Amino acid sequence: MTDAVQIVLAKRPAGDVTADCFREEKVTLPVLADGEVLVRSRFLSLDPYMRPRMTELRSYTPPFELGKPLTGGSVGEVVDSKNPRFAKGDTVIGMLNWASHTLHDGKGLRKIDPALAPLSAHLGVLGMPSFTAWYGIRHICKPKAGETVFVSAATGAVGQVAGQLAKLAGARVVGCAGGEDKCAWAVREAGYDACFNHKTEHDVGAVLDKLCPQGIDADFENVGGRIFHAVFERLNNFGRVAFCGAISEYQDQTPMAGPPKMFTIVQRRLTLQGFIVSDHIALMADFVNEVGGLVKEGKLKSRETVVDGLAGAPAAFMGLLKGENFGKLVVRIA
Amino acid sequence: MTDAVQIVLAKRPAGDVTADCFREEKVTLPVLADGEVLVRSRFLSLDPYMRPRMTELRSYTPPFELGKPLTGGSVGEVVDSKNPRFAKGDTVIGMLNWASHTLHDGKGLRKIDPALAPLSAHLGVLGMPSFTAWYGIRHICKPKAGETVFVSAATGAVGQVAGQLAKLAGARVVGCAGGEDKCAWAVREAGYDACFNHKTEHDVGAVLDKLCPQGIDADFENVGGRIFHAVFERLNNFGRVAFCGAISEYQDQTPMAGPPKMFTIVQRRLTLQGFIVSDHIALMADFVNEVGGLVKEGKLKSRETVVDGLAGAPAAFMGLLKGENFGKLVVRIA
Repeated sequence: MTDAVQIVLAKRPAGDVTADCFREEKVTLPVLADGEVLVRSRFLSLDPYMRPRMTELRSYTPPFELGKPLTGGSVGEVVDSKNPRFAKGDTVIGMLNWASHTLHDGKGLRKIDPALAPLSAHLGVLGMPSFTAWYGIRHICKPKAGETVFVSAATGAVGQVAGQLAKLAGARVVGCAGGEDKCAWAVREAGYDACFNHKTEHDVGAVLDKLCPQGIDADFENVGGRIFHAVFERLNNFGRVAFCGAISEYQDQTPMAGPPKMFTIVQRRLTLQGFIVSDHIALMADFVNEVGGLVKEGKLKSRETVVDGLAGAPAAFMGLLKGENFGKLVVRIA
Repeated sequence: MTDAVQIVLAKRPAGDVTADCFREEKVTLPVLADGEVLVRSRFLSLDPYMRPRMTELRSYTPPFELGKPLTGGSVGEVVDSKNPRFAKGDTVIGMLNWASHTLHDGKGLRKIDPALAPLSAHLGVLGMPSFTAWYGIRHICKPKAGETVFVSAATGAVGQVAGQLAKLAGARVVGCAGGEDKCAWAVREAGYDACFNHKTEHDVGAVLDKLCPQGIDADFENVGGRIFHAVFERLNNFGRVAFCGAISEYQDQTPMAGPPKMFTIVQRRLTLQGFIVSDHIALMADFVNEVGGLVKEGKLKSRETVVDGLAGAPAAFMGLLKGENFGKLVVRIA
């Protein structure tokens, strides 16, 4: 029996997530049953998609359960195992609880080589966010040399990779981010042609007209709301939108004032496609081949924010939803 | 030299098209130059896409020019030719003026066999509207047996074919139309499983919940606005929308009150794809093979409204935009 600390969903948020949506608990985990494995968490990934899971929406993943630990992509170490696939000391990646320790049935858990890269990279530039960026760029946006690609949340865990992959494909890449420091990093390190600060630029349309004089051929969409609206109006004929997320809408309780006007989709023969990377696990090997190679050759920059200690996860997550992180947000668990 | 009657664009509409947007003119056409052909119109097709062409929108087709004749898909008879591809007496199809006679350079004009089908059918069930329906169903909606397909403007020139093709693919097909007579025809003749009257059903969401208990897998969208909005909310995971038109938006001057909420596209991995059939002319032979065969076997019903006389075209077009036609709308030109 092991003592664990875990964070449970205490309340479903209405609008902004607040601290009282979370509760830290000390629990004693039961002894391992056959097939189970006990994992001590080392890094927990915090991602915007967790916000919709906190509510009872009809969604692609079941909502988090009230009174149960939240879960997230994590890297950890096997401390005990009754599962023949795992041995004590293995480093593993998978969905673990927001917790010091998780009792896991082994499904979806896989071993990784801790010598390959820093552990947190498996949750970022070598992990799901990067796979998400790769899928959206390669399979939906399909940028051609000379085209203009827009990436909202340009320096986020997904956006920073999407922008760089579009750039490597020869596109002009323009993004937006919430802060001058992020915009400067996007241009200097990630190679964006331009990046504007959506916190200070109130006329998004005007800045897009200036930065994307040839219009926009593909949009890697993470934000939704007014930024998407302005981008949508500037999409060229045969434009593609890879709809990865819509973070500006997650906490917005305002009902839509009227039905959206959609004729532009016809006029310009647009394709708007929503996707969730877990539907495309079969392509993981292609991703690893391509992006793993780029990382090894130093052709893909990445930036992360590390928060120390599980207790800081709720505040870090609330900050993420307000864009306070810079790059991939992970929690280091002692 | 030939005397012709033609209808020109006298004024661009703001909001509803009004009678003073049109002007009938008598003109004397110049003598034929080399390569030209003089065509006497027999049938003129009136279609909703003409409405956006009356304004100066950034659009896929250049706007109609002020003071110049409007044009439309037409069937006519060659009365004189200095083009080696056409001889006097040929029956031809192509874009002609809203006019008794058109002087044409021959581009995009092609001969048809008048014995094959009634002339107006080449503008409907054997023509562009039907090709449009076929493209949207086969290449975007891709209905599978047991899925639910929704068709707005269910008995329009395009919708009536789209619904029947979806039905032949084994889908449950639900539509809406503006009138009890149209809805009855959709169910009895075109084989829709259900069709509701959007002029009397004010709670579109509730009626969709009743008629589409399994949700909606594909939407062949002709209407936009509140009907699309309700359909969109009921799309299943991996739903497809073939965006063919948005007639409810064409005359609506209300600006969008706020940015559309788009997260549903991600959650349900939707694909919204706008298309214009003229981009896909290369597939015309596939369409003719499949749909021509169905028409010959009597497996595809069609319904049309014929208006007599060019002078009636403006009023018929204004009625089309309000849904007053029943099926394909054509003008017979004396």
